[in-house]
Amino acid sequence: MIYLDNAATTRPDGQALSRAAEEAFQHYFNPSARYGGGFLVHRLIEEARSRLLASVASAENYELEFTSGGTEADNHAVFSGARRGNAVTSAGEHSAVYESFVALRGRGVEPRFAPVRRDGSVDPERLLSLVDEKTTFVSVVHVNNETGAINEIGALAQAVKEKNPRCVFHSDGVQAFGKLPGKIPPAVDLYSVSAHKIGGLKGTGALIRRKGLALPPYLFGGGQEGGLRSGTENVLGILAFSYAAERKFGAIQGDHVRVDGIARRTRARLEESGLFAVLSPENGSPYILTVACEGVRGEVLQRMLYDRGVAVGTGSACSSKKPHSRIIEACGYKKSVLDGVLRLSFSPETAEDEAAEAAEILCNTAKELKEKLS
Amino acid sequence: MIYLDNAATTRPDGQALSRAAEEAFQHYFNPSARYGGGFLVHRLIEEARSRLLASVASAENYELEFTSGGTEADNHAVFSGARRGNAVTSAGEHSAVYESFVALRGRGVEPRFAPVRRDGSVDPERLLSLVDEKTTFVSVVHVNNETGAINEIGALAQAVKEKNPRCVFHSDGVQAFGKLPGKIPPAVDLYSVSAHKIGGLKGTGALIRRKGLALPPYLFGGGQEGGLRSGTENVLGILAFSYAAERKFGAIQGDHVRVDGIARRTRARLEESGLFAVLSPENGSPYILTVACEGVRGEVLQRMLYDRGVAVGTGSACSSKKPHSRIIEACGYKKSVLDGVLRLSFSPETAEDEAAEAAEILCNTAKELKEKLS
Repeated sequence: MIYLDNAATTRPDGQALSRAAEEAFQHYFNPSARYGGGFLVHRLIEEARSRLLASVASAENYELEFTSGGTEADNHAVFSGARRGNAVTSAGEHSAVYESFVALRGRGVEPRFAPVRRDGSVDPERLLSLVDEKTTFVSVVHVNNETGAINEIGALAQAVKEKNPRCVFHSDGVQAFGKLPGKIPPAVDLYSVSAHKIGGLKGTGALIRRKGLALPPYLFGGGQEGGLRSGTENVLGILAFSYAAERKFGAIQGDHVRVDGIARRTRARLEESGLFAVLSPENGSPYILTVACEGVRGEVLQRMLYDRGVAVGTGSACSSKKPHSRIIEACGYKKSVLDGVLRLSFSPETAEDEAAEAAEILCNTAKELKEKLS
Repeated sequence: MIYLDNAATTRPDGQALSRAAEEAFQHYFNPSARYGGGFLVHRLIEEARSRLLASVASAENYELEFTSGGTEADNHAVFSGARRGNAVTSAGEHSAVYESFVALRGRGVEPRFAPVRRDGSVDPERLLSLVDEKTTFVSVVHVNNETGAINEIGALAQAVKEKNPRCVFHSDGVQAFGKLPGKIPPAVDLYSVSAHKIGGLKGTGALIRRKGLALPPYLFGGGQEGGLRSGTENVLGILAFSYAAERKFGAIQGDHVRVDGIARRTRARLEESGLFAVLSPENGSPYILTVACEGVRGEVLQRMLYDRGVAVGTGSACSSKKPHSRIIEACGYKKSVLDGVLRLSFSPETAEDEAAEAAEILCNTAKELKEKLS
């Protein structure tokens, strides 16, 4: 199986997982237990927290709260940050942010959605035009999870705060964390990340927040995670996340260059076939390459590809109940393009020859399907 | 190490975990992915859901939503169920319910707390006297997590609904699930359970709900868990939970009898020493035995015991930031008793001779400490 659906989830990092499993099962105590075994587990969690935080931010300026995943981190950010007035986001957000914004209406906060450009990126001027003195919260995804377009969240956050300094700025960093080199820009207050997109386990994530930013708790109870997120910590998930991230960040520059090469060659091959239109921008994240095979249904092509040993996505796996992608639709494509969307997403584990073989299989399969339909 | 802190967390069930890990790592796909691998993971989750639900309820009358643990299940129940008027609970609740009730005030719902009896159980008449025509939600813990007292949640739910049929009745079943034989009584609408108290992993739980009961979503996003709890599913945690539960429920009657014998002998030995007062009721869950060594500090005794190879709790590990147990205080004990509380909690894996040895070590250590202090 050539696995090119890494933006949906990655194969767990075996080395990170083995180490985490060994520690978590030997030290199975409750991290809140007030004896040696409990203290040790507590320390393992705190070390994991420091390690993860250090990879993208300075511990002087930011803190990190573990969550049950990117969705919880996004929900916590939106519902904690947007508590009155209006809140601004884009039409290109992951559903964890988008649907939370929709739900703000029922809580007396007006959600505002800025349109996205053809490549899925946010137009800063159109976003800023929605921010006014009543805006309490702004959220813009770092890397668009369907097109790979990168939003300049540092500049956006800065511009938002120049217009309204009391705004809290959040970014969903799930598709950027462990993939795009660089630290969280200083004007960003909240940043969501997920473990299973970089070799960790499903069910673990984190919300990184600027120090001093007061958030109301999201889960009430025993007072874990500084009182913000009660509940016995997911020790295995947390440890696996930190070890997987450590490995990803240790190789982030080299991986980026290598994956960029793979993405460019795949893109060129699919473009030259004349069968696919590439929707992802040239300057986006190399980890995501979204294409459309006009006139065929993406799901049909996806299943044929799977039968031939290539796993790819069709838009976001997380919103699989919808007929086609809300985000690609927001980019302004017509139905015949929307229907034929495929998302190829790479990982540092993707081999050069695997990607080349997958591109051939894609072209052959698309050609066959088109001929059958014509 | 003689581990008698199983109410805080249990050693993971190795067999359940191996099976879950093997499946989750082989089938690492996103359960929302629309190809064979994704469908298979989705099916594994649905089988786990059916298996877990069948252990305590009929699938005709109940549904099960996976959560990130007992705390999230409790929070979801409280904040979804108590949306106006007043909500009634007891002073003997786990902090995940108790602190959520406290937070209801800020959401315009009046929380009401019924006192508990000496053994930690709820006095049905005092609870019912708080229920009126404006009550929308009632929550009563099934097994008190500090004393082991069992509340007759079936009769309570029935009585509550006779007084106000529109009330939603929730019970935190974390310390009962997989330990007390029997099904969820029919008048109970919502029931919270946790994986890591019965050999599963920390970070997994479930909220079981009566079919037809409309709940607002707790996490917004991709629409997983029937739209109630978005976010990529914690596949490993869910599978491990279902296999651990299957093993626990398969042996629940025999385990109960055996643990009951262990608890009774331990109780008798500690009582006859004259050093400990037993706070747990005779007819409570045999899995929890809470005692007090008056005149000494529980934490000091706990650490001495740990150094001598016996791990026990002091009140709930989840509320370790408080000076002494809110729940035992609510039972009406004076400070000198509260200070000296120890919670011994058993599991089906607790060996008869381990428990006997632990009781001797407890008596010797308490005697030594008392002599040192006098």
